[in-house]
Amino acid sequence: MQKIKALIVMALLLAACGGNSGDGADAKSSAAKQKSYQWKMVTTWPKNFPGLGSAPENFAKLVARMSNGRLKIKVYGAGEVVPAMEVFSAVSSGTAEMGHSAAYYWKGKAPASVLFTAIPFGLNAQEMNGWLHYGGGLELWRELYAPFNLVPFAGGSTGVQMAGWFNRDIQSLEDFKGLKMRIPGIGGEVFSRAGGTAVSMPGGEIFTSLQTGVIDAAEWVAPYNDLAFGFHNVAKYYYFPGWHEPGAMLEFTVNKEAWQSLPDDLQAIIEGAARAINQDMLDEYTARNNAALIQLREKGVDIKSFPADVEEALRKFTDEVIAENVANDAMFAKVYASFDTFRKNVMEYHRISEQAYFELRDANL
Amino acid sequence: MQKIKALIVMALLLAACGGNSGDGADAKSSAAKQKSYQWKMVTTWPKNFPGLGSAPENFAKLVARMSNGRLKIKVYGAGEVVPAMEVFSAVSSGTAEMGHSAAYYWKGKAPASVLFTAIPFGLNAQEMNGWLHYGGGLELWRELYAPFNLVPFAGGSTGVQMAGWFNRDIQSLEDFKGLKMRIPGIGGEVFSRAGGTAVSMPGGEIFTSLQTGVIDAAEWVAPYNDLAFGFHNVAKYYYFPGWHEPGAMLEFTVNKEAWQSLPDDLQAIIEGAARAINQDMLDEYTARNNAALIQLREKGVDIKSFPADVEEALRKFTDEVIAENVANDAMFAKVYASFDTFRKNVMEYHRISEQAYFELRDANL
Repeated sequence: MQKIKALIVMALLLAACGGNSGDGADAKSSAAKQKSYQWKMVTTWPKNFPGLGSAPENFAKLVARMSNGRLKIKVYGAGEVVPAMEVFSAVSSGTAEMGHSAAYYWKGKAPASVLFTAIPFGLNAQEMNGWLHYGGGLELWRELYAPFNLVPFAGGSTGVQMAGWFNRDIQSLEDFKGLKMRIPGIGGEVFSRAGGTAVSMPGGEIFTSLQTGVIDAAEWVAPYNDLAFGFHNVAKYYYFPGWHEPGAMLEFTVNKEAWQSLPDDLQAIIEGAARAINQDMLDEYTARNNAALIQLREKGVDIKSFPADVEEALRKFTDEVIAENVANDAMFAKVYASFDTFRKNVMEYHRISEQAYFELRDANL
Repeated sequence: MQKIKALIVMALLLAACGGNSGDGADAKSSAAKQKSYQWKMVTTWPKNFPGLGSAPENFAKLVARMSNGRLKIKVYGAGEVVPAMEVFSAVSSGTAEMGHSAAYYWKGKAPASVLFTAIPFGLNAQEMNGWLHYGGGLELWRELYAPFNLVPFAGGSTGVQMAGWFNRDIQSLEDFKGLKMRIPGIGGEVFSRAGGTAVSMPGGEIFTSLQTGVIDAAEWVAPYNDLAFGFHNVAKYYYFPGWHEPGAMLEFTVNKEAWQSLPDDLQAIIEGAARAINQDMLDEYTARNNAALIQLREKGVDIKSFPADVEEALRKFTDEVIAENVANDAMFAKVYASFDTFRKNVMEYHRISEQAYFELRDANL
């Protein structure tokens, strides 16, 4: 009977170990491999908000399928566990194992974070992905977030955004004077230098703030998202293109201890799913912005671009703001050097490829 | 002893079942989940060729990690198992479980296949991904390949390509007369209509064919790949942009029975890894084309674009070729209708976003 009991115990242990027990993997590692995980992901977006909010849901679904249910991630909207602007802190402290947000919201904690979302006159989505994954960008992002106990991943891109909603026709730089605008990151610093006042607030608060006159202007994303929030009901002019956010990159963050607790296959599943969803979000925006643009046009929104001298002035102020950030923060200087070199190089090739093709197609189609 | 033997058998069965045996999953499904698979992937590229060849290798590595070694895929270069242009047939017949190639090589078998790689004046990489994943493109691709026993996935993009290598300065349409050029797909049909002769051959044969005068001109990809093949040693002029391939999409194909034999988690791992590598390949090209372009310039290559009237003529011939394909093949007509609608819509939005941003940045940076 002793022998039989021993065999039963062995049978149960082997069962718990999973199919790899025959491959010579030691019992401890196999047990970790079959352990199940229940994680929380906090986000900066309203629950299930188009694009921004569907990406983390799609990520959680893909991870659950790929891991055969061993890693289940429950996604929370802004305010459900922590407020929109506390995602970084919550994942850093371990309140949640993962977060989905945008790095430039944390510029108060780490000035260089803005470079991993978007800066004025910076990289578009394709270029950001090139820099992050083949230009050294992701390694710098990991270095920047390490002191905060966070492991970052590219988490989707909106593509080139719009320049935002205004109730004043911008005919010269003078028209920015006295305007209070919701605009985060370096774009916000530039807008303030151009005579306005930049305000930071989560997307969910913009509509009411515009309606009640707390702010006079706001940038959010682009037609697909902006239509969902109904900004056309409280603003008259819609400017393009997004000089300040040419390819806003979102972020997945993972708490470092939570990350280290995972076996290699689940780490690979998170890495793979993040890359897959990083592309999927851009695909969604690319396919859906135009239908929303048509609806906005039908609603009588005035869609236009800034005068060339305003764009030129924004460029000049951007140079000043960047130079100050470079002078004040060593890590900003280090990341910007990498970013700026990549930009110079990729622009040179894109002039004869992506950009030249757009112009060729436009002239002939 | 009978009892002990029975317990040993049970122990082994349970071990084979893996950790899910305790979750109430039935033994058959759990056994399938823990089964290991060894697959072959045949490709159209020289083994480990930059970009095109590294993508399938990266795919296999990611799948092996995510599946904890349960799905191992061995990648073969062109000619190792089957010739470059027999990838489609080999996966269709089950000689290999997977393939990595480009759909437009199969236009003899399925004319509409060209629409899933690239057509002249068509979609760039970002737009192709939008159409495939949020515009109905992938469903049509699945429908097209179903009779061939194949399940297709987007398998990476090169971005906007170059228009190709010539030994003749193209000053007017007359200069295409009598030229033999390696150029596949609809681009090739258009080139033939413009007075030249289109030739189809795998990448690995282009250099020698140019050198020996079997062909007078060739398009392959873009600087990163073209430098690797050394075309600058056998051709003088390098034209941009790739009017015929504005975002050549590669493909992963899976044999249908092999696909159906996989449990859901391994299917999800293939889907996720394909999306991840689909983006990763574009990132690699985006980061590496410019360094190669600089080297080509230093080697004295004359890099230029076609005159506007040549581009206009190519557009006119493209319309004719497309109209004939639409008239001759019902599936081509069905897929093209979806493609063309998506193009019209996305162009409208990209004029005020991606394209407008390139122009804004170029004017100010």
